[in-house]
Amino acid sequence: MNKSMIQYIIGWILTVEAALLTFPVIVAAIYREKSGYAFLITIGICLLAGVPLLLHRPKSKLFFAKEGFVSVAIGWIILSITGALPFYISGEIPSYIDALFEVISGFTTTGSSILTDVEVLSYCMLFWRSFTHWIGGMGILVFILAILPMTGGERMHILRAESPGPSIQKLVPKIKSSAILLYALYIGMTLLQILLHFIGGMSVFDAITITFGTAGTGGFAIKNSSIAGYSIYNQVVITIFMLLFGINFNLYYLLLFRKFKIALKSEELRYYLLIVFISVILISINLGGIRNFLSFIHVAAFQVASIITTTGYATTDFNAWPTFSKSILVFLMFIGACAGSTGGGIKVSRIVILFKALGKELSYLIHKRSVKILKFNGSKIEHETMRSINVFFVFYIVIFTASVILISLDNFDFTTSFTAAAATLNNVGPGLEVVGPTGNFSSFSNLSKIVMMANMLAGRLEVFPLMLLFSPHTWKK
Amino acid sequence: MNKSMIQYIIGWILTVEAALLTFPVIVAAIYREKSGYAFLITIGICLLAGVPLLLHRPKSKLFFAKEGFVSVAIGWIILSITGALPFYISGEIPSYIDALFEVISGFTTTGSSILTDVEVLSYCMLFWRSFTHWIGGMGILVFILAILPMTGGERMHILRAESPGPSIQKLVPKIKSSAILLYALYIGMTLLQILLHFIGGMSVFDAITITFGTAGTGGFAIKNSSIAGYSIYNQVVITIFMLLFGINFNLYYLLLFRKFKIALKSEELRYYLLIVFISVILISINLGGIRNFLSFIHVAAFQVASIITTTGYATTDFNAWPTFSKSILVFLMFIGACAGSTGGGIKVSRIVILFKALGKELSYLIHKRSVKILKFNGSKIEHETMRSINVFFVFYIVIFTASVILISLDNFDFTTSFTAAAATLNNVGPGLEVVGPTGNFSSFSNLSKIVMMANMLAGRLEVFPLMLLFSPHTWKK
Repeated sequence: MNKSMIQYIIGWILTVEAALLTFPVIVAAIYREKSGYAFLITIGICLLAGVPLLLHRPKSKLFFAKEGFVSVAIGWIILSITGALPFYISGEIPSYIDALFEVISGFTTTGSSILTDVEVLSYCMLFWRSFTHWIGGMGILVFILAILPMTGGERMHILRAESPGPSIQKLVPKIKSSAILLYALYIGMTLLQILLHFIGGMSVFDAITITFGTAGTGGFAIKNSSIAGYSIYNQVVITIFMLLFGINFNLYYLLLFRKFKIALKSEELRYYLLIVFISVILISINLGGIRNFLSFIHVAAFQVASIITTTGYATTDFNAWPTFSKSILVFLMFIGACAGSTGGGIKVSRIVILFKALGKELSYLIHKRSVKILKFNGSKIEHETMRSINVFFVFYIVIFTASVILISLDNFDFTTSFTAAAATLNNVGPGLEVVGPTGNFSSFSNLSKIVMMANMLAGRLEVFPLMLLFSPHTWKK
Repeated sequence: MNKSMIQYIIGWILTVEAALLTFPVIVAAIYREKSGYAFLITIGICLLAGVPLLLHRPKSKLFFAKEGFVSVAIGWIILSITGALPFYISGEIPSYIDALFEVISGFTTTGSSILTDVEVLSYCMLFWRSFTHWIGGMGILVFILAILPMTGGERMHILRAESPGPSIQKLVPKIKSSAILLYALYIGMTLLQILLHFIGGMSVFDAITITFGTAGTGGFAIKNSSIAGYSIYNQVVITIFMLLFGINFNLYYLLLFRKFKIALKSEELRYYLLIVFISVILISINLGGIRNFLSFIHVAAFQVASIITTTGYATTDFNAWPTFSKSILVFLMFIGACAGSTGGGIKVSRIVILFKALGKELSYLIHKRSVKILKFNGSKIEHETMRSINVFFVFYIVIFTASVILISLDNFDFTTSFTAAAATLNNVGPGLEVVGPTGNFSSFSNLSKIVMMANMLAGRLEVFPLMLLFSPHTWKK
C-alpha cells in the first residue's frame, strides 16, 4: 500500500475543502451572520491538517486499483468529518453525530435530514448544506483530478473508484481533460437552472440552493415543505433538471460535439425514459383513476423524477398515496438513475444488463450449446463487467438486508425501517411512514444513524471502496 | 419438444393423484362425512383424463432438459387444478379460485390460507389439505420416478427440475433407487413423528395432519390457533422435526450408511444450524432482555425453526413482536432451508456460496491475477453452478419485486404487501400485519391471489420450470 501517496491525496482533499468553505463565509458576510466564524475555524483546521500532508511529496509513484479505492474511501470519510464541523461549532446542530449525518447526507447527495425544522438554520448553514450536494454530485476527487499533478494510471484508478456505474468511459483520452470537461458541463447546466428559476421569480438564494440540490440529485430543501411552496413553473423546471442530471454526462458531451446519432442510440437513456414514462402513467391512474389521471400527471412526474434520480424533493406527502404508487416509488429508489450521472441507486444500465443476462440464461438452459452474445449500447458486454455487476447486486442486497435488521432495533414499524435503509443506501432522502416526506431522521438512535451513514457512503461510492477499506486483504503486505 | 412423452407423464400424474385421493375417501368413511363424494368425483375425473394418456406410449424417447422442466411445470399445474376440485365440489370452499389457492398453497408446502376459520372444514377436507403438504414436500414427480418405467436420462432431467437446491446429487447411481430411498426415508421420519405425538397424547387425526404439515414444511394447521393449543412436549417435537425436515435428505442417507464423517462435514448443515442458533438467541434477547432471555428460548426456537424451514406454523402471534425480531424472521424467510430438503426459500447453500463469491471478488478487485478456488462441502464450486446461482438470485428478486407491486394494487399497507409476496414466494405461509399468524389471505383480490399462486409455484419449483413454460424459446421448433 502506497501510504504516502494516499496521504498526499488526503492533503489535497483538505486543502480543496478549505477553499470550498470560503463560499459559505461569503454568504455569512452578505447576511451578516455570526455563524460564519464556524466556517473560518473549520477552514483553519482543514489547512492545518492538509497543508503539511502536501509538503511530503510521495516518493513512490506506485498506484494501483487498491490505492484508488482506499484513497476514495478515506477521502470521503475525512471530507465528511471536517465538513460536519461548521454545523457543530456554530451550535446550529448541537449533536456531532447529527451534524455528521447531515453532512454525509449532503456529500453523498442523499438528502435525508435529522432536522425537524430546517427554516431555523442560518443562511450560511443552509447554503453549505445545499453546496455539499453540489460538491458530492460530481465527486470531489473528480474535481481534484482536474487540478492534481498525477499520471494517467493513478487518475484512472481514482475515477473508477469514485464514479457511479458498471464501467468507466472516458470522454476524451486524457483523464485530466475529461475531469475538466465534466465540471464544465456541470457548471454550465447548474448556471442554466439558476437562471431559469430567477426568471421564474425565485429569490437568488432559493434559486442557488434549490439548484444545488437538483444538480447533485441531493434533495435538501431550505423550506420545511420542500418544493411544495414554489410555483408550478419552478416545479416543472426542477422536474426537468432532475431528469437531466440523472442522465449519463457522456451523452451531453456527445451532444456538445454534435454526435447526436450516438447519443440517441444510448440504450440506458431509452430505458430510463421508458421507466419514467410508465411510472408516471401508472401512478397518475392510481391517484386519479382512468378518467381523471391527466390532472395528476404533474405531481406524479415530479415525484417519479425526484425518486428515480434519487433526489428526494417532494411537492406532496406521497406517504399518503395508495400502496401501489408507494411500491412503485420504493422500486424506483433501487433502480436509480443512469450510470455516470449524479444520481444514486443500482443504476438503470446495471438493471438492463441483468435483465438481458436473464434472457440469455433461459435460452442457455434449453440449449446448452447456444452462444448468445449480449450487447449493451451496441457493444459486447465483457465477462468482467457482467461479473462485477452480479457481485455488486449481491453486495447491495446483503448490505441492504443487514441495515434493515440493524435499523429495526429502534422498533419503528417495518415499513419505516425498510424504507429508511432503502432511502439512505440508494441516496434518495425520504422514505415512507416516519421517514416520509413530512418526517425526518431525528428520532433514530445513534446506532441506526451510524448504519445509515455507512449506507449513504456505500451507496454513493458504489460499495467497493468501503468494503475494501474494511477488508484485511487490502492491508496485507 | 417431445409432446407425447410429456402427455404420458401427465397421464401418470393424474393416475397417481387418483390413487392418493383414496386416502381422504377413507377418512370420510371413518368419520361418516358426506363430503367424501367430492373426492370420488375427483378420482373419476383424474382417471378419465389420465388413463387415456397412459395408453398412448410415446414413440420418441428423446427427452432433454427442456422436456424435464416443461413436464414438471405442467405436471404441477394440472395436479393443482384437479386437486382443488374436492374443496370446490363439496362447497366447503365456495370459490374455485380460493380452492385453487388453498391446494397450490398445500402442494407447494406454503401454508398460506384463504380460510377465515379452518375448524369448520370436515375431517376429510382437513386431511386432504394437510396431505397435499406431505405429497408436495418430497415432490410428486420424485414419487413417480420411483415407479415410472423411464430411462436414466429422462429421470435425471425430471429430478433436476423438481428438486430444490443449486445442484443435484444422486444418493445412489440409479435414479430409480434414489427416488425409492428418498421416499423410504421420508415415510420413516413421518411415522416416527406421528408416533412421538401419539405418545405425547395427541389424537391420531391431529398427530397425522400436524406431522404432514411438518414433514412437507407446509404449515397448514387444523386449528385456528395453529400450534398454540398443543402441549409444550408436542411443540418441542414439532420444533425438532421442522429443523430435521429442513436438512438435505442426502445427509440422512449418509448417516444411514454410517458415513458419519462425510455427513458432519456438510458446510450447509453447519451454517444452517449456526443461523438458527444466532437467530434464536437474538430474538430471545429482543423479547425478554438479557436477564430474562432464557424464558423466551422455547417460543423463539419454535418460530425460528418454523420460518427458516418455511413451514409457517405458529405458537404465538409474532406479528406483535418488536420490529427487530420481525425483521429477522423476514430475513429467514428468504434464506430458507437446506437444498434437497422439503423446505423453500433461496436455500442456505446458495446464500453461503454467494457470500463466498463476494469474498473472492474483493480479493480479485485488489489483485487481478489472484486465482482463488472456491470450495463448498470440500469440493470445487463449478463455474456452471456459480452462474446458475447468480441467475437464480436475480430472477428471485425480480419476481419478488414484481409481485409486491402487483399485490399492492389491493391497497393493503406496504408491510402486508411485502410480506404476502415474501411468504408465498418463499413457501412460508404467514407474513406480517394482515397476513400475520392470526390473519389470512381471504381479503385479497383475485388478481393478487393469482400472483401469489404463481409465486408459490415459482418458489417450490425454483423459478426455472415456470419461466421456461412461458418462454417462447421453449416452444420454438
